[in-house]
Amino acid sequence: MPLIECIPNVSEGRRVEVIEAIAAAVRAAGAALLDVSRDAAHHRSVLTFAGEPDVVRRAVMAMFAAAMPAIDLRTHAGVHPRMGAIDVVPLVPLAGASLDDCAALARTIGADVAERFHLPVFLYEAAASAIHRRPLEHVRRGQFEGLADKLRQPEWQPDFGPAVPHPTAGATIIGARKPLIAFNVNLATDRLDVAKAVARAVRQSSGGLPCVKALGLPLADRGIVQVSMNLTDFRATSMADAFRAVAAEAAHHGVAVLESELIGLVPAEALASAGAAALALPRFKPEMLLEVQILSKSSGQGA
Amino acid sequence: MPLIECIPNVSEGRRVEVIEAIAAAVRAAGAALLDVSRDAAHHRSVLTFAGEPDVVRRAVMAMFAAAMPAIDLRTHAGVHPRMGAIDVVPLVPLAGASLDDCAALARTIGADVAERFHLPVFLYEAAASAIHRRPLEHVRRGQFEGLADKLRQPEWQPDFGPAVPHPTAGATIIGARKPLIAFNVNLATDRLDVAKAVARAVRQSSGGLPCVKALGLPLADRGIVQVSMNLTDFRATSMADAFRAVAAEAAHHGVAVLESELIGLVPAEALASAGAAALALPRFKPEMLLEVQILSKSSGQGA
Repeated sequence: MPLIECIPNVSEGRRVEVIEAIAAAVRAAGAALLDVSRDAAHHRSVLTFAGEPDVVRRAVMAMFAAAMPAIDLRTHAGVHPRMGAIDVVPLVPLAGASLDDCAALARTIGADVAERFHLPVFLYEAAASAIHRRPLEHVRRGQFEGLADKLRQPEWQPDFGPAVPHPTAGATIIGARKPLIAFNVNLATDRLDVAKAVARAVRQSSGGLPCVKALGLPLADRGIVQVSMNLTDFRATSMADAFRAVAAEAAHHGVAVLESELIGLVPAEALASAGAAALALPRFKPEMLLEVQILSKSSGQGA
Repeated sequence: MPLIECIPNVSEGRRVEVIEAIAAAVRAAGAALLDVSRDAAHHRSVLTFAGEPDVVRRAVMAMFAAAMPAIDLRTHAGVHPRMGAIDVVPLVPLAGASLDDCAALARTIGADVAERFHLPVFLYEAAASAIHRRPLEHVRRGQFEGLADKLRQPEWQPDFGPAVPHPTAGATIIGARKPLIAFNVNLATDRLDVAKAVARAVRQSSGGLPCVKALGLPLADRGIVQVSMNLTDFRATSMADAFRAVAAEAAHHGVAVLESELIGLVPAEALASAGAAALALPRFKPEMLLEVQILSKSSGQGA
C-alpha cells in the first residue's frame, strides 16, 4: 500500500482542548498520529500523521470538521504568517508512494474540502497548477488580512472553491512535497560570523548544495553557534553531504564541528544511507530496511 | 501496537507449489510477507513475515495447516539439519515489542500447535524452559532420525505435545531471539589466512566482540576473501563496531577493506545508528525514524 505523511499547520497554538479535539478526530479516522507540536507564540500547531491515501483523506476531512467551528482568524494574532484556520496541508510520499500520488491526493482533498466547507483552496509545490503558485511563501503572501484583495487578482484565483475568503477560516493551501529534514550542525565556537559564512557557503540560494536551505544562528545559552539547515530533497543532497560541507567550510575558518541534531522525524532511508556510506555498503537500498519492507508489504487494513 | 517478525524454516526447498501454498496461507492470515527464500540443495525454505502478535499467531497456525499434509520427513534428504517438517519458528521483536513479548507468544503458539497438530514442541533461546535447551543446535541434535530416542530422555521432554515424534512432521522448535544481522566485510586480498585470522579476532567464541559470530571464507570467483559475520545483538556490538574491528585487524595484516554487504533485511535502527555516529548525532533514538514511529503508532487494524 502506498503510505502518505500529512503535516497540517493549524492556526491555533493556545487552547489545548481545541488541538486535542483535532488530534482525536485525526486518530478516530484511522490515521497513525505521530506528533503534535503546539506553539503559543506562533499561535500555531503542527500535527504529523500517516496512513494510506484514503485514510489520510478521511483524517484531513475530520480535522477540518473539528477545526473550522473552533478557530476564527478575525481575532487571531501570532508571530507566524497564516492565511487560513487550517493554514497549510502538506502531503509527503513515504513507503510505496510517489510525489505524483501526493499531488493527486492533494487535488482530491482540495476539491472535497472546498465543496464541503465552502473554502477557497490553493494547491502548492508539486501539486501547484502554475509555476508562480509553487512556493508556499508566494501563495500565502498577503495573509488572511490581504486574502480578499488577492482573490480578486486573475493569477490568484483558487484551484477549488469560491473566489472570496471564508469569513472565519480564510483559505487553505494544500500541496505535495518531498520529506523535509531539519538538520542542525553546532560549531565549537561563539563566532556568529563563522556560522553565517558557513550557511552562505552551503545553501542553494547562494550557490551551495542543491535543496539545502541554511541559516547561521547563535545558541546564546550554550555560548556556541549553529548552522540550521533544511534538506528539502535528501536524495539530491544527503545528510552526509550536507554534514561534510559544513565541516569543511567551518574548518576553513579554523572551527570544528561540535555535534549535530535532528528536529522532528526523519525517513529511515536518510540516516541509514549515511550509515551505509560509513560502513562501505555500496549496494544499500531502502528496501533492505525491515520497517520499510513491512510498511510497503502490509495488507492495507491499516497504517 | 507491538510488531513481531517471524522467520520460519520449512523442510521443503524443491516443490515450488508447496512453498507458494504456505506463503499464500501466511498472507491470507493478514501478515505482511516480506521474503521467501527457497533452497533446493538444503531442501529447505525460509519465510519472513511480520504482524501484531495475534496476526503472527494466526499466520503460524495457517502455515502449519498448509505444510503438515504436504511434507513427509521420512523421505526428506537435504544438506541442512532438520528435526521437523516445520523445523524452526523464531520470533523476533520489532517496533514496540520486547523479547519477553516474543517468548510469551512462542509459548502460546507452541501450546496451540501441539494441541491442534499433535506435534511435540520444544521452546528455544529466550523462550527456552531450561539453560541446556537454549541453543538451537542442542535442541535439534539427533535430527528427525534421532527424535524418538531423544524424546525418551528425561532432559528432552517436549515443552508441549506428546513425547513421541509426529510420524511425518517430527517435532517443531519455537523460540524468541533478537534480530540477527548477516553482515559480511570483503577484504582486498586473496589471502584466506588473513580472513580467518580476522574472523578469529573479532568473534565472541575466541575472545572477540560480544554477540558476534564470524568465519573467514574465500570468494573464489572474485579472487578475494570475506569475513562473514552474524551480529546476534546489534545493540551489544553495533555494525559500526564490528566493521571497525574487522578493518583494524585487517590493517594489522596490511590488508584493506574493499566493501561490505548485507544479506537479507536489517532493522532500520541498526544502519541508522551507524549513520548517526558518522554525522555526530549523539541524541539519536530509533523513535526519530518515521517508519519506526508509524509502525508503533498504528491503530492495530493491520500490520
